[in-house]
Amino acid sequence: MGLIVQKFGGTSVGSIQRIGQVADKVARFRAEGHDVVVVVSAMSGETNRLIALAEEVQERPEPREMDVLISTGEQVTTALLSMALHKRGVKAKSYTGSQVRILTDDSHTKARIREIDNERLHAGLEAGFVLVVAGFQGVDEHGNITTLGRGGSDTTAVALAAALKADECQIYTDVDGVYTTDPRVVDGARRLDRITFEEMLEMASMGSKVLQIRAVEFAGKYQVPLRVLHSFEEGPGTLITLEDANQMETPTIAGIAFNRDEAKLTILGVPDMPGVAYKILGPIGEANIEVDVIVQNSADDNTTDFSFTVSRSDLARAKEVLQGVANEIKAREVRGDSKIAKVSVVGVGMRSHAGVASQMFGALAEVGINIQMITTSEIKISVIIEEKFLELAVRSLHSSFGLEREPKEEGTA
Amino acid sequence: MGLIVQKFGGTSVGSIQRIGQVADKVARFRAEGHDVVVVVSAMSGETNRLIALAEEVQERPEPREMDVLISTGEQVTTALLSMALHKRGVKAKSYTGSQVRILTDDSHTKARIREIDNERLHAGLEAGFVLVVAGFQGVDEHGNITTLGRGGSDTTAVALAAALKADECQIYTDVDGVYTTDPRVVDGARRLDRITFEEMLEMASMGSKVLQIRAVEFAGKYQVPLRVLHSFEEGPGTLITLEDANQMETPTIAGIAFNRDEAKLTILGVPDMPGVAYKILGPIGEANIEVDVIVQNSADDNTTDFSFTVSRSDLARAKEVLQGVANEIKAREVRGDSKIAKVSVVGVGMRSHAGVASQMFGALAEVGINIQMITTSEIKISVIIEEKFLELAVRSLHSSFGLEREPKEEGTA
Repeated sequence: MGLIVQKFGGTSVGSIQRIGQVADKVARFRAEGHDVVVVVSAMSGETNRLIALAEEVQERPEPREMDVLISTGEQVTTALLSMALHKRGVKAKSYTGSQVRILTDDSHTKARIREIDNERLHAGLEAGFVLVVAGFQGVDEHGNITTLGRGGSDTTAVALAAALKADECQIYTDVDGVYTTDPRVVDGARRLDRITFEEMLEMASMGSKVLQIRAVEFAGKYQVPLRVLHSFEEGPGTLITLEDANQMETPTIAGIAFNRDEAKLTILGVPDMPGVAYKILGPIGEANIEVDVIVQNSADDNTTDFSFTVSRSDLARAKEVLQGVANEIKAREVRGDSKIAKVSVVGVGMRSHAGVASQMFGALAEVGINIQMITTSEIKISVIIEEKFLELAVRSLHSSFGLEREPKEEGTA
Repeated sequence: MGLIVQKFGGTSVGSIQRIGQVADKVARFRAEGHDVVVVVSAMSGETNRLIALAEEVQERPEPREMDVLISTGEQVTTALLSMALHKRGVKAKSYTGSQVRILTDDSHTKARIREIDNERLHAGLEAGFVLVVAGFQGVDEHGNITTLGRGGSDTTAVALAAALKADECQIYTDVDGVYTTDPRVVDGARRLDRITFEEMLEMASMGSKVLQIRAVEFAGKYQVPLRVLHSFEEGPGTLITLEDANQMETPTIAGIAFNRDEAKLTILGVPDMPGVAYKILGPIGEANIEVDVIVQNSADDNTTDFSFTVSRSDLARAKEVLQGVANEIKAREVRGDSKIAKVSVVGVGMRSHAGVASQMFGALAEVGINIQMITTSEIKISVIIEEKFLELAVRSLHSSFGLEREPKEEGTA
């Protein structure tokens, strides 16, 4: 018995039938004695329909009016889900972002939440209502409707959970939890019962399909226990939480993340002097190209080779920018390679366990995979390898770190 | 140069192309130096689409949630029209009923406006914006979204015009004004340049296709000059206004109204004693059947014949109720007749001109039409006749009262 915030995305409420299934689930939690706040997205397809209408009117509509337009999508869902709950005999009430008062800044279409006035919500809960809140939207201090950007409904749910000091924030999705790695790549990939916020963030390459990174950061900051669950299948999901100091046997490694959407740029024979990195990456940043891994190697001849990775779709543009830089700083050559991938080993246990890096490099060497770049953080080690070796690398690491499902679990999976 | 409130209904904003045409019109008024507030309905079909969704969830959804649901329709239009105005270089801003603060009572789905906070609107106008306001909706004192009922957008427009002391409230429709009678019945029906609020109300049977009666009442009460115009054709429309004392030659008759949706019930041989009318109409009212014309004739034998008309769809039910009453009060017989119609002559000039009634009855007698019932108000005389004579009656009266278009006007019509 506690206060639970549940978030259902567009697919989970994509039809009247699915809204009914969601209502069944909410009604069940209510019957168990929980207080429930439900955050919903627009029915799948609705936001795109509204955006298409706007684009038919004007190529670049004013963000303020875009927010007025698309915020209606979530509002429709709140009303329909409330009705579905009423039909099941559950007291329920809908709230727009403005009605809750989810106060945001005035950055229309990508607003950030500043404050939540939880007075009305508490009153509603005390009166025995399930509160159905429109996700993704808020209101600025002048009463203008704002939206939090795509996927903002996760953020709404976490923010409400934080403001209401909920016992748990449940994010319902089309997967049944967070896995040690992508089950499509490794048969034995195992659903994690728990993962820390930090690990979840570092698992971004897989995690982003499950949860908005922004919501995870938010949950971590306010220490809101976050659970990822399947919308229409039963199961405990994965709990994303603070590192549990009481859990003696923290596994060293939580999972193996990977990303195919990487391309490598190398600028060779760069004169080795202060400010070179800035001269190279400055123009890339100005061109709005995001850089991921960066590695610099010094050579013997007072020159250095400088490499970094970007999203594949940015490769051509980045190469063009870099060619200009190379001429200016008199570098020898610019090379681009889109046939690479990144594989990462993630785990908070890594902090206190030496040898994770060497075990990783050893496992890759054993199957003959050459490492092109290495980058490390406190709880992640990433390597850039040839793309064709990606699956082999993930499987080898998954096995080397002992992440497979245990045989006894297989029957119940 | 003045402040104009313009209202465009669902058909006028039924597609992106039409929203563009509305924006063209608004932009033209703005270019002429007027301050403009635009009230819009949901795009045609949208409200029905939303209602269908609700009905798919639940047979009788809670009115509060219906309002949350269907109010999104107007909100979408405000955003799209604002964008269309931006595209034409016109500064514009959308407002929901809650953002304006159109305060209503809490009668969801049929709320009544209590008060309009025009501070934000004045600020917007002073900053040079065209204000695009969602019609049909408001907010109660607890911040719940309310709607004014179907056609409520006309009421929103009039209420805003009253609150802002606008110079004119223009209602754009699919007709170019109010006519002396239905042009489909009388070829020579003439568009009226002016009509008084009272006449407009009495012309309800035709007027209701043009304007919501409630909006006309509201405009009359607050003396808001109301103009009916065609959305996509040029023309002066019809101005609905107070009786103009300066206008010496007020025409006696404004127009001929008629209504086919009438059925007559007669209860014969009713013992003539006090309270009989109540005994008959009480149960009819309790059955939620609205009564229009009521006539009671005394006979010689201490009994009376009592007749009244109802909407045709209520005839069967009313007859059933009446049969029970007849048995109780020992009346002789109950008769129902659905083949009747009502024809009315309407005009404020009638007040000071005797002889309108006799001219009316004379004109009908001349073409051999028998009058079944007569009822009069200060500015209207109505007769019930056999339905098959309806067109003949309307044409005869239209001609007898000299309402035809003058030949010289015909070229410009």
